[in-house]
Amino acid sequence: MLGEFQLIARYFAPLAAGEPAALGLTDDAAVLAPPPGRELVLTADAMVAGVHFLADDPADQVAQKLLRVNLSDLAAMGAVPLGYLLTCCWPKATDEAWVAAFAAGLMADQKAFGLSVLGGDMTSTPGPLSLSLTALGHVAPGRALRRSTARAGDLVCVSGTIGDGALGLGVLTREWLGLPPEVAAHLAERYRRPRPRLALGQALSDSGLATACLDVSDGLVADLGHIAETSGLAAVIEAGEVPLSEAARSLVADDLELFPRALTGGDDYELCFTLAPERAGELPALAAALDLPLTLVGRMEPGQGVRVLDRDGAVLPLGRGGWTHF
Amino acid sequence: MLGEFQLIARYFAPLAAGEPAALGLTDDAAVLAPPPGRELVLTADAMVAGVHFLADDPADQVAQKLLRVNLSDLAAMGAVPLGYLLTCCWPKATDEAWVAAFAAGLMADQKAFGLSVLGGDMTSTPGPLSLSLTALGHVAPGRALRRSTARAGDLVCVSGTIGDGALGLGVLTREWLGLPPEVAAHLAERYRRPRPRLALGQALSDSGLATACLDVSDGLVADLGHIAETSGLAAVIEAGEVPLSEAARSLVADDLELFPRALTGGDDYELCFTLAPERAGELPALAAALDLPLTLVGRMEPGQGVRVLDRDGAVLPLGRGGWTHF
Repeated sequence: MLGEFQLIARYFAPLAAGEPAALGLTDDAAVLAPPPGRELVLTADAMVAGVHFLADDPADQVAQKLLRVNLSDLAAMGAVPLGYLLTCCWPKATDEAWVAAFAAGLMADQKAFGLSVLGGDMTSTPGPLSLSLTALGHVAPGRALRRSTARAGDLVCVSGTIGDGALGLGVLTREWLGLPPEVAAHLAERYRRPRPRLALGQALSDSGLATACLDVSDGLVADLGHIAETSGLAAVIEAGEVPLSEAARSLVADDLELFPRALTGGDDYELCFTLAPERAGELPALAAALDLPLTLVGRMEPGQGVRVLDRDGAVLPLGRGGWTHF
Repeated sequence: MLGEFQLIARYFAPLAAGEPAALGLTDDAAVLAPPPGRELVLTADAMVAGVHFLADDPADQVAQKLLRVNLSDLAAMGAVPLGYLLTCCWPKATDEAWVAAFAAGLMADQKAFGLSVLGGDMTSTPGPLSLSLTALGHVAPGRALRRSTARAGDLVCVSGTIGDGALGLGVLTREWLGLPPEVAAHLAERYRRPRPRLALGQALSDSGLATACLDVSDGLVADLGHIAETSGLAAVIEAGEVPLSEAARSLVADDLELFPRALTGGDDYELCFTLAPERAGELPALAAALDLPLTLVGRMEPGQGVRVLDRDGAVLPLGRGGWTHF
């Protein structure tokens, strides 16, 4: 393993090459002129090998998941990405090729999402690889999307498809054998490499369409529960309306018990937002413009908690509310 | 151990109570209006139990060290603290009292240094406690202090005393027995709880007195080496001028071999800066105003590398250049 300074110079300084604020990663801190007339949006997430990703996940995809789960938080606020700081605690046995692939994954995503590393820290650990990333974005003043601002009568909308991440984890832990390769590949990719819905978040902020918003990281039921709780409301999900990918549908068709997992498993990284019913007509054009399905799945009501209803209006029992990290 | 959300609600949300930007820690991200007409300064450091602090260090002091090493980086740039984001990877066996003491340490330092938590993440880990903190500060445009801007002929100045942190680690690992209690206590405190030199950094930025600056975290020789290298110069340290605390002097008097450790050990968290010789006369008034010793210890010259000279001008051999994290 290279020393700390060589590691930074060889693999991480190139990630800062296009970003004057990073000062070449050779100073004590980054110095950034904030975009004039904008508010800053700041979020941080940690990931630990064996907890948030699998020890044999490809290094580039681990890096991209780390960056993207943070970008998904920026998306949930309607923010435009600005940069990030990264701390890595490397096990002594980490080989240099792994670090090189990790940095290559970041480089590819920096180009894809239009941001650069600003700073960070590299250290060693006697434990598993532990990563922490702080992402910065910006948003028009007063236009950040919140969780606590849903209103009774609002509809609930989700982007993309729900449950792929949780089922993808099952694929990667070999819970099912003999799946069609394209089904396994789709779900694994969805678990490993979330697609932060930045364009959607920004459009919802710009248009004022969303009354509340978050990203689905702990499972749709738990996360919609956060909107409900902070808004002082109840939420209802029509189970039959929840959009599943073809791959997820094929798995659920074989084992109906997997449907609750799709609704309560984590790692979707889709946006879930509420909107006034009279603006629902704007959804199809927005979905078309973004090339991203937007599906109405429920509504907000007076009360508290989240109920999931089947096609007959009966409450579906769910094993657990969602993923927590303890 | 409490669940993730309970832990945040009980111990970390109170740290955000005075800071509207944190949104009560219930949203996906913080939303901060940057101070008008200022640049942002951003830094991140990670700490791992058994690597950066001792497993039996008091929880409040671990929290304060984590925050203060980051504040020391802000100080090195001349920045005013604004807020921080924190990620904690807790071992399963962490007990709640430890977390409570950790949060209490942060609360005390938030008040002392005038900043609040803005966001973060809590997760579990099968490894040792792993912490990462990103600190934000602000500085007048173009006035951030840098490492790369020293000039040949500049003098080198350090704040406070050098070597206490490295010797304090020796005290805590019981390298010496039978030390006078006040010596042991002084050095241990210096290792465990750095004092970020924020007022000094801000004064150096405001006055334009420093031509280059950093904080001494890897050892004076190594860190002055960073100024030398990034400025394309050599640095000379007059060993006899390096300020030692009374406690450090008493230890070094008994064992001269400890003197190189004072110069090359880490964890000082003092500022080391360069200045034009014609402005050296400003140092006594600044030291008096800040109630902080400021001591000239050397100079910058054409060339490269760092030489430490004894009273006769002979080069002192040093075992190693400084602390690296691998």
